[in-house]
Amino acid sequence: MRSESPKSSENTFESVTAFAPATVANVACGFDLLGFALEAPGDEVTARFYEDTITREGAQAMQKTQALQSMKGAPQTDHRTPGVVISSIHNDGGRLPLEPESNTAGKAVLALLEDYFGKLDHESEDQNEKFSWDIELEITKKMPFGSGLGSSAASAVAAVTAVNQLIGTPYTKSELLPFALEGEAVASGAKHADNVAPSLLGGFVMVSSQDPTFHTQVPYPDTLTAVVLYPHIEIKTRDSRNVLPESVSFRDAVLQTEYMAGLITGLTTGDLNLIRRSLHDRLAEPYRASLIPGYTELKNAAIRSGALGCSISGSGPSVFALTEDPGLAEGIGAAMALVMKTKDIPADLYISPINRTGSLCIASTPSPSNP
Amino acid sequence: MRSESPKSSENTFESVTAFAPATVANVACGFDLLGFALEAPGDEVTARFYEDTITREGAQAMQKTQALQSMKGAPQTDHRTPGVVISSIHNDGGRLPLEPESNTAGKAVLALLEDYFGKLDHESEDQNEKFSWDIELEITKKMPFGSGLGSSAASAVAAVTAVNQLIGTPYTKSELLPFALEGEAVASGAKHADNVAPSLLGGFVMVSSQDPTFHTQVPYPDTLTAVVLYPHIEIKTRDSRNVLPESVSFRDAVLQTEYMAGLITGLTTGDLNLIRRSLHDRLAEPYRASLIPGYTELKNAAIRSGALGCSISGSGPSVFALTEDPGLAEGIGAAMALVMKTKDIPADLYISPINRTGSLCIASTPSPSNP
Repeated sequence: MRSESPKSSENTFESVTAFAPATVANVACGFDLLGFALEAPGDEVTARFYEDTITREGAQAMQKTQALQSMKGAPQTDHRTPGVVISSIHNDGGRLPLEPESNTAGKAVLALLEDYFGKLDHESEDQNEKFSWDIELEITKKMPFGSGLGSSAASAVAAVTAVNQLIGTPYTKSELLPFALEGEAVASGAKHADNVAPSLLGGFVMVSSQDPTFHTQVPYPDTLTAVVLYPHIEIKTRDSRNVLPESVSFRDAVLQTEYMAGLITGLTTGDLNLIRRSLHDRLAEPYRASLIPGYTELKNAAIRSGALGCSISGSGPSVFALTEDPGLAEGIGAAMALVMKTKDIPADLYISPINRTGSLCIASTPSPSNP
Repeated sequence: MRSESPKSSENTFESVTAFAPATVANVACGFDLLGFALEAPGDEVTARFYEDTITREGAQAMQKTQALQSMKGAPQTDHRTPGVVISSIHNDGGRLPLEPESNTAGKAVLALLEDYFGKLDHESEDQNEKFSWDIELEITKKMPFGSGLGSSAASAVAAVTAVNQLIGTPYTKSELLPFALEGEAVASGAKHADNVAPSLLGGFVMVSSQDPTFHTQVPYPDTLTAVVLYPHIEIKTRDSRNVLPESVSFRDAVLQTEYMAGLITGLTTGDLNLIRRSLHDRLAEPYRASLIPGYTELKNAAIRSGALGCSISGSGPSVFALTEDPGLAEGIGAAMALVMKTKDIPADLYISPINRTGSLCIASTPSPSNP
């Protein structure tokens, strides 16, 4: 499934920049189970082999060779470091931690390196030497956080996507999921893949509420387009969890199951009427709607404008609508934006087809030793 | 969508016999929502234009012509009857009612005739004349009732399928669903399509807990095979409803939704592992399992023998298992039968691929006036 190290310098880069998209989780009846990826917005992370102040001046080639030797198992006795350095975070207003263990991107890359060097040198018991070199991350937030659009997942996914290519792509995309989940857990307190999996893999993804790394792609109609409105209000994830009840009526449990069966059947067979009758939520929306001012009006505006359905993205405050007709998306978005305007709530609007690709490397600098 | 009457004698028959298959409803996580059809067992119903004792002796041709004239709108003033006569029921041990209004097959055909003559002559206000001729039904039970295999649905579906062909096929199969549901309601007290729809249409069918006539086919792997064990014990439908709770934990509601999402995705994409991990039930099985002696052992025996999953058929007492490998079906069945044998509970075993066709006409006698 993976190579144990970059096989030659041809596989290595000086730096790699990856993009990972925002995601809509829950998707009405898919509470804790479904998510899909947008084309934009998303986060960017650039990964480099870390060079400290001593080596930064002109010793790049030596340093890279040393790193490669280490990856091939050669001991590097003078190099005891935490593995990841976050050099800068742009556009976060200073709110995100630079400490790798506390940062979703940093923690995700640490998890990747733990696995990577664990496989390379699984008999070493000297924990101080478990990382033979360090990775420097530069994080550029290009999406709001606290929006219900999977911001922490996007940073974690972009980071592991960039690092994976930087070190020669030893992992498949699916194999990166557990590392990104470790990062996600720093922000959300739980390993839950409903944002991470679609951000990484693209498309409509079903995850499990029991097995954090389980995931499966759900086919969907080509023209399906999302309209997402992010009202600039704050909902704490804790609050959005606390409003949920401990139990629900038997009837609501059957209804939620019915909606889910209909949504999956509708998505996979392209039955738009079935999608329309199934984009409802009996478990979370009845309790969370009150956390979003004007939610019912937003939803009504979207449906009146032709949306197949409309519900809360993740734990909010973003609200998404889906349409099979990209030509309707602008109108749906305008109707939703108007509701926010009449309430004097600033809001951002995103219109995007479902992203089929997930995270991807968008720029890279080959290492100087490349031919 | 339909012709208003048989267009010529070429379309008419003296008698038509139809078969409708047994069905497995609920299907683990699909409580109240999913059903599939078996190839066998099932019920047979023969439908004829009714001839009373006066005309039975040698006046068939005249009578048929009269009936046909009536169907074309000619009044038949001396013919005020209830519309349906059940002449005989075979293999029911005298337990099923001959009174059409109380019989699932009789009631279903009455509903069909109400609609048929209502469309033909919607301006007539004389309720005594709403049926211009009568239908005679002969019902042959070829499956156990009270088994959880949709016996009442099969009789109702076979009856409307036979009558529809007898009168020139004015209805599509889907259009017959509301009539069969009327029949089903006589037996179960509710219009619920989870047995009726698959018996009529074949395949895996998703129905609604809210809209009795809504139904949609769910694609499934070609080789999917059912093993059904019917233990000869009695569970009253009322008892099986009464053991269900009024509310369930939020967690169980999410789990049931997860299983349903997985089952539908697995069926439509042919992902057998996904089907296997999804054939579970958090809503009904935990409460109904105790009504079936040896249920846990039956289930374990099926799974050990390679079944993808095993659960209660309808409200029981039948238990079904599914396998993708028809070659495993005999072994699964033998293992399940052995459990019943060790408990001295007589049981019937049925092994069948999923029935793609649903109900069908298996014999017909053209009317004598045909060329």
